[in-house]
Amino acid sequence: MYVPAHFEESRPELLQALMRAHPFATLITFDGAALNANHLPFEFDPEPAPFGTLRCHVARANPVWRELGGKVQPLVVFQGEHAYITPSWYATKAETHKVVPTYNYMVVHAQGTARAIDDPESLRALLVRLTNSFEAGRTPPWAVADAPPDFIDTLLNAIVGIEISLTCLIGKWKISQNRSTADQASVLAGLQDAGAAGLARAM
Amino acid sequence: MYVPAHFEESRPELLQALMRAHPFATLITFDGAALNANHLPFEFDPEPAPFGTLRCHVARANPVWRELGGKVQPLVVFQGEHAYITPSWYATKAETHKVVPTYNYMVVHAQGTARAIDDPESLRALLVRLTNSFEAGRTPPWAVADAPPDFIDTLLNAIVGIEISLTCLIGKWKISQNRSTADQASVLAGLQDAGAAGLARAM
Repeated sequence: MYVPAHFEESRPELLQALMRAHPFATLITFDGAALNANHLPFEFDPEPAPFGTLRCHVARANPVWRELGGKVQPLVVFQGEHAYITPSWYATKAETHKVVPTYNYMVVHAQGTARAIDDPESLRALLVRLTNSFEAGRTPPWAVADAPPDFIDTLLNAIVGIEISLTCLIGKWKISQNRSTADQASVLAGLQDAGAAGLARAM
Repeated sequence: MYVPAHFEESRPELLQALMRAHPFATLITFDGAALNANHLPFEFDPEPAPFGTLRCHVARANPVWRELGGKVQPLVVFQGEHAYITPSWYATKAETHKVVPTYNYMVVHAQGTARAIDDPESLRALLVRLTNSFEAGRTPPWAVADAPPDFIDTLLNAIVGIEISLTCLIGKWKISQNRSTADQASVLAGLQDAGAAGLARAM
């Protein structure tokens, strides 16, 4: 990813917050011939420092878990909010008209060494943690223990976990840092009007 | 991408509608050693049939345009709406409890042969079309001609276009097609409550 210095975000707490707020990410792999992408919810675990670990699971019938462990590290893309920025929002427009459209967005790219998780107990523990995390806001929260144990056992046989030990976390926060203070204020107002609350907060 | 037959969507009009509704996509490339992803707004042109053409532009300083034309075709991922599906929504839950969480989502993966667009007139025409498309809903719409011509000329020197002649378009519409009619109805109601209007419409 092309990241000019003024758009780079490296504070771990901000990168982690984006990954937790947008856990449905894109797992990109290379099988030696072609690019492959799968869309999956991920657990981010900050251990071990400094980068942490990502975990997800896929259908056993999905060949992606057999492609891991090669020379090319998988890339996981977490996409935050994004919004079209019309030049009409810029304060500068009225003065110089030297403005063009762009997109503002926030993304985290995570790379690391991947391996399959194929033992049922680790996999069950992962399902419980992922479920509890997604159900945290619900009343009452659904729990894995609500389903019949033999049903869960059967499902565990039909999936494979993927664990990625991260070696690199890069954040690109493209949120008008390269604009004047007046332009930033007018873009912020535009984003708030457009309902892009996350981008507005980040600005 | 792993696409079980019941989740595959191949109708061109639906794939094109998703790409047009979610034009801010992820351009995934392989430079011979590592995976790379850039986040860019794309123009989808249905010509030539059957798959059409994607076009975008990047900063000239972004090395991605120099990596095109290799053996590995770039992959462009257009992501539609996605939403966590709690088991609590399923009608089946009350009967058998044989339910687990999932995500519903809609994505289009586009692959093809890429080349750089480096002549200023083609690039200017692309900027005009992209701008007009993004400004179509605004009153008054901003137009490239609103900016000083020498300012636009300078910017044209700082960017490079990318054109991808598509050879493959795959859609995955994971919208509970594998659930009973009763479960589909209850998920639809859940998605509507959760504000996931696009997924609810697609169901």
